[in-house]
Amino acid sequence: MHTLNTTPRIDGFRMPGEFEPHDMCWMIWPERPDVWRNGAKPAQAAYAQVATAISRFEPVTMLASAVQYRNARMMLPDHIRVIEMSNNDAWLRDSGPTFVTDGQGGLRAVDWWFNAYGGLNGGLYFPWDSDLALAQKMAEVVGVDRYQAPLVFEGGSITVDGQGTLMTTSDCILNPNRNPDLSQSDVEQILGDYLNIEKVIWLRCDIGEETDGHIDQLVCFARPGELVLSWTDDQASPYYPFVQEAYEILSRETDARGRPFKIHKLPIAEPMGLTAEEASTIEKDDWSYSREAGDPIADCYLNFYIANGGIVMPAFGQPSDQQAAEVLDQVFPDREVVLVPCREIGMGGGLIHCITQQQPLE
Amino acid sequence: MHTLNTTPRIDGFRMPGEFEPHDMCWMIWPERPDVWRNGAKPAQAAYAQVATAISRFEPVTMLASAVQYRNARMMLPDHIRVIEMSNNDAWLRDSGPTFVTDGQGGLRAVDWWFNAYGGLNGGLYFPWDSDLALAQKMAEVVGVDRYQAPLVFEGGSITVDGQGTLMTTSDCILNPNRNPDLSQSDVEQILGDYLNIEKVIWLRCDIGEETDGHIDQLVCFARPGELVLSWTDDQASPYYPFVQEAYEILSRETDARGRPFKIHKLPIAEPMGLTAEEASTIEKDDWSYSREAGDPIADCYLNFYIANGGIVMPAFGQPSDQQAAEVLDQVFPDREVVLVPCREIGMGGGLIHCITQQQPLE
Repeated sequence: MHTLNTTPRIDGFRMPGEFEPHDMCWMIWPERPDVWRNGAKPAQAAYAQVATAISRFEPVTMLASAVQYRNARMMLPDHIRVIEMSNNDAWLRDSGPTFVTDGQGGLRAVDWWFNAYGGLNGGLYFPWDSDLALAQKMAEVVGVDRYQAPLVFEGGSITVDGQGTLMTTSDCILNPNRNPDLSQSDVEQILGDYLNIEKVIWLRCDIGEETDGHIDQLVCFARPGELVLSWTDDQASPYYPFVQEAYEILSRETDARGRPFKIHKLPIAEPMGLTAEEASTIEKDDWSYSREAGDPIADCYLNFYIANGGIVMPAFGQPSDQQAAEVLDQVFPDREVVLVPCREIGMGGGLIHCITQQQPLE
Repeated sequence: MHTLNTTPRIDGFRMPGEFEPHDMCWMIWPERPDVWRNGAKPAQAAYAQVATAISRFEPVTMLASAVQYRNARMMLPDHIRVIEMSNNDAWLRDSGPTFVTDGQGGLRAVDWWFNAYGGLNGGLYFPWDSDLALAQKMAEVVGVDRYQAPLVFEGGSITVDGQGTLMTTSDCILNPNRNPDLSQSDVEQILGDYLNIEKVIWLRCDIGEETDGHIDQLVCFARPGELVLSWTDDQASPYYPFVQEAYEILSRETDARGRPFKIHKLPIAEPMGLTAEEASTIEKDDWSYSREAGDPIADCYLNFYIANGGIVMPAFGQPSDQQAAEVLDQVFPDREVVLVPCREIGMGGGLIHCITQQQPLE
């Protein structure tokens, strides 16, 4: 498949909103024993549940390493497609391509630079070569051409409305361990060129977790002009200053077409931490982020996946699970809200949005 | 994708003749330094030439190991699709699935047992686990269901007319190192059930090479009722007794529909052998077949690939190259005959038919 020297903007391609129709959902099968406890068996069961839930709404392709291929194939329902692909970890939202469409049957992939959330300067694992190769390999499987965007980027650091508006966080994409030589306007130019964006809104959400403040724990587009925002009134929460600031900014902001935003507030779960027993079965490796007893578990209901006719959202066995589901039920009246237990995925530092990547309908 | 418990015959699926329209051609990128001289670099260049030649007529997908993925992607033209897939060697005719169709848009894969040409009793390499997994993985990439046929089998050991007739060699498929517990009629039953065959014609071609007499060095269907047969009048040739015997049998045989065969004779190249210099750069490995100076190089023009509108055939820089091309030009008047230099591939023990696998049009 061809590597194009133009940009999606020049060629009339754009990144659709996640709420637009999908062709399928892609995921990676987890296996690292230094990230996932007990040889990744509990995480694999949780990923299988997420994949199965999404597959009620759209086809799912699971990528699995050569070593894990047969186990993944055995653990997943037959109707989920399993394809061999080397990987360094299982966060396809961040390591995968962004698919762009032209509204005329055209589909292409944007291949970003990926450095495992900060490379040699605070990144989460070394090496990351297999993750860096995922976008091209996926484009070849799909049989589409690709663009190589000159930006270190994780898909979880943006949300778009498909109509020219993108939101991102400065803590992540402008971090010196991602793009030290690019200014804010350089980044806006690149995001504009490769996702067909007219307006970038900058927020912050660096609550001290592993991604340096990905936006997919803070806010997302439900549809053009309408946002879901993580929310807490608890001043002790690490989210508190960021959700307040985001609300303030977004209340007076407008999108690329000049529309103000309708904002839906979504609760955050009660803080959870790795138990000593859980932490004890995670392998230690000097070349990856260390996970210790007491470390926080990802707790954002906002990290859900918008499928065709469905919302697949994380649950933690807390009373707030139902409150969050009710909010999403109201925000997405035409989609069925499905909860999937996600504590095991949260231990790895992300949730359902982080482990999925939509391929939009051409 | 589902694993079916029925058979293609029951479900109305059949293996089309290779001369019927294809959706694409699949190949595996060579890399074993104990099979291919000089770190497989000359073989890779030759495979790339074959793939490029076939891609003039139909899409080509090249499977490459994780280690070789980037090199394969760089060495092949952009329009050839490259997909990561573990493998033990590069003979997809033999290790891959057989695709079957129902004439109504349905495509499925038959997944055979593969034991590297004889398993622990004379097989060519150990292990063969990645090759054994290819058929299922390819079915998943294509997104089709599969049958698991209870037979140790290599695709190069059969040729079919797509109308109920199959030819095979007893030396190979009835070899105790393939199917020791199956009788000839057991094998006929299984081939019949899984490829939708009414009549099996048994030939022999055990000239002492590595496959125990694959039929794709002896005879193939050009179309129903019409055969191309390797031919030599040289009594010193190892082929001589087998081509004579095959001609005698086929001259009085009829196909599943009762039609006699029209037989076209195709020359065989002059015998070639590995030079000492060539052999010296093939790695030694106790777990694979040893290749020494003087060992024969595959020399059958018959080992060509029938593409949509094309014949891609091996050339060896011999005068007989053109004679063979002229025969094929007459046998296939509607296809363009393309010669590709194949000495480097022949050193591995096979030629163009051995390294390709067609996916028929649904």
